[in-house]
Amino acid sequence: MIKATIITIGDELLIGQTIDTNSAWIAQQLNILGIDVLRRVAVGDNYDDIYTAIDDEFAKANLLILTGGLGPTADDITKPLLCRYFNSKLVVNKQVEDRIMSIFQKRNLPMLERNLKQAEVPDNCEILPNSAGTAAGMWFEKDDKVLIALPGVPHEMKTIMQEHGLIKIAHTFISETILHKTMLTAGVGESFIAEKIADIEQELPPYIKLAYLPEYGMVRLRLTAKGQDEVALYSALNKYFNAIINRLGMIVIAHEDLTMPQLVVRELIQRKKTIALAESCTGGLLGHLLTQEPGASAAFIGSVVAYSNEIKTNILKVKASTIQTYGVVSEPTVREMVHGILQEYQTDYGIAISGVLGPGGGTDRVQVGTVCIAVGNNERKFTKTFKFDKDRTLNKDLAAKWHSYCCGNC
Amino acid sequence: MIKATIITIGDELLIGQTIDTNSAWIAQQLNILGIDVLRRVAVGDNYDDIYTAIDDEFAKANLLILTGGLGPTADDITKPLLCRYFNSKLVVNKQVEDRIMSIFQKRNLPMLERNLKQAEVPDNCEILPNSAGTAAGMWFEKDDKVLIALPGVPHEMKTIMQEHGLIKIAHTFISETILHKTMLTAGVGESFIAEKIADIEQELPPYIKLAYLPEYGMVRLRLTAKGQDEVALYSALNKYFNAIINRLGMIVIAHEDLTMPQLVVRELIQRKKTIALAESCTGGLLGHLLTQEPGASAAFIGSVVAYSNEIKTNILKVKASTIQTYGVVSEPTVREMVHGILQEYQTDYGIAISGVLGPGGGTDRVQVGTVCIAVGNNERKFTKTFKFDKDRTLNKDLAAKWHSYCCGNC
Repeated sequence: MIKATIITIGDELLIGQTIDTNSAWIAQQLNILGIDVLRRVAVGDNYDDIYTAIDDEFAKANLLILTGGLGPTADDITKPLLCRYFNSKLVVNKQVEDRIMSIFQKRNLPMLERNLKQAEVPDNCEILPNSAGTAAGMWFEKDDKVLIALPGVPHEMKTIMQEHGLIKIAHTFISETILHKTMLTAGVGESFIAEKIADIEQELPPYIKLAYLPEYGMVRLRLTAKGQDEVALYSALNKYFNAIINRLGMIVIAHEDLTMPQLVVRELIQRKKTIALAESCTGGLLGHLLTQEPGASAAFIGSVVAYSNEIKTNILKVKASTIQTYGVVSEPTVREMVHGILQEYQTDYGIAISGVLGPGGGTDRVQVGTVCIAVGNNERKFTKTFKFDKDRTLNKDLAAKWHSYCCGNC
Repeated sequence: MIKATIITIGDELLIGQTIDTNSAWIAQQLNILGIDVLRRVAVGDNYDDIYTAIDDEFAKANLLILTGGLGPTADDITKPLLCRYFNSKLVVNKQVEDRIMSIFQKRNLPMLERNLKQAEVPDNCEILPNSAGTAAGMWFEKDDKVLIALPGVPHEMKTIMQEHGLIKIAHTFISETILHKTMLTAGVGESFIAEKIADIEQELPPYIKLAYLPEYGMVRLRLTAKGQDEVALYSALNKYFNAIINRLGMIVIAHEDLTMPQLVVRELIQRKKTIALAESCTGGLLGHLLTQEPGASAAFIGSVVAYSNEIKTNILKVKASTIQTYGVVSEPTVREMVHGILQEYQTDYGIAISGVLGPGGGTDRVQVGTVCIAVGNNERKFTKTFKFDKDRTLNKDLAAKWHSYCCGNC
């Protein structure tokens, strides 16, 4: 059984200046390979603390992934430490040196002594080239265990892992074939689904596992099959995947592993349809989510963020009487906001959101946490009212992400 | 010397489903109290793994903060484990029980057996009440060391810490007075500032420390004074704080610890001015950032997210000839976008952003990572072109956050 531990290095993690997103990403990738992460540990830029952490964790795990401590200024600690731990010495690696020199030439920047020092690596590690930056990844082996050291900058770490690290990990540790198939459901909870497919789940052979991955109005179902015979695995996996899809029917909104924004954008592009948003309380968050994926511009035209009521009435043409009668946070208002954005931006579909996120702003009629969402086109509109009872930040996040529920229903 | 370690519990952290934001928040709060965080450790919902982690870390630190493992479903592991570790037994706590029952009454929800089980707590801990949820915080003492167990839901954890935990930590561990003063600078780097105030920094007495906290186009400077005589500390802190402000001049944009969106919104409200945005590549992210703070509606009216060129020309009235001559990512274009949003939304100020975030979309004239920003009013506009060379997500984040540089210059 392969057990991995992730160690992140950096004072910025211990004073809370940086939120550690690297660990979650690495854990996800290892999880897909079927490797369990046992622990995650963060330590500061301190020689003894790093050394102790590596030594302790290497005793518990057989794959150790280190991120951080490899930048041009932090180099001084981690690399000599790895040399001591793996009983090696620093040597200039020509491949890394060439790479660093070409980057500085391309950027037309003067190269400092400390930049070239990044080309020095322990002589008994294998280089994992970094096509996104100057600090190379390093692969060490000791007693049938592996330690990978990576830079802490997220996009450099990810590039190295995607281009080299994960492939090498799979090659070294995974003897079985692992297949995944994921579907996305919307509008119902985990326990509802579990009940609905209880008999299929019980019937699953021991080499196929089902994971429920719930998030905002959606549940992702992932089937994972492990074994030697790839053809048989594939066929068994498909059989149970299709059985679940048939059982769940309409609530399955994608037969692939997509995020909701990816799905919305892709469906629209496939149908050659466009969309625009009318956001109030979310301030632009939903537009931000829809444009996280490259290529969104083929379907997403733009938004009117109508934070003030004047923009709702002047630009989106919501009737003053509607706001007066039903309130600015109401289904009739968001319905008219959808109508308004369809007229203003001339798109096929529109989504509108209006709510009270808190902490202030609640009234007898509309409590803090109330959010109304409408989705639709010129012919048909679906509206729904949600009551979230979290803090402002989370209410906002929920308001933007629950559009999935509405899109799933539309 | 007080050393703290944060342990986060939950399988969702080890499969990468959840990004751990709790640790960063706790670390920040402890840092403000002058308490160093030694390590952060994440383990899964496994009895032995949690027990070992607590035992190991309690040997290294004198303050251990645990988050997670206290929900109605995960309860079964952590509480019995804490009972064993602290040699106690579970008893129903009347205060917690009343709290849980009143929550369910208020929400008009049926109460399950497992909800009431949350009222059972080890008999030798002190309760840290949870006014945001059902799982109470717990404070244990052993051999002059403290362990605090908190629920993992971020807003519940924060509420307990802010209302009880941090005060009790300060009371227990901090014998000295600690004072902070923070200023915000924009437009120059950390090393530039360090050089400019080198003599003041050298002159600082040993009981006053200066921290540089850099982020997107800004550097936060925090002076921390520790000692017994509060009046003398306050006076010394003020003296050096003012000396730095006088030396740095115009680049200091706030004499307080504010985020840039907080500052922008507050300055506008104080001056009774309004603002609207014209966002292209950021898709709504800047509007989202400006509306993170409650009360933003007093200054922020709304945005036009002009993701397509048609919205730029039809709604924001950017001249087709400007786009043709200079390109859609150009200073003339964002200048006209500011003009357009000022006309369309009738605000005092406007900010416009247009860029190519990648991975595709670059041309010979405009490379991926190029972002143009304009800030201004009807009389005066400041424009600037940035070249970011990160991945799409980070380029977008930088594009939205560097508006601070432009606002600082406007």
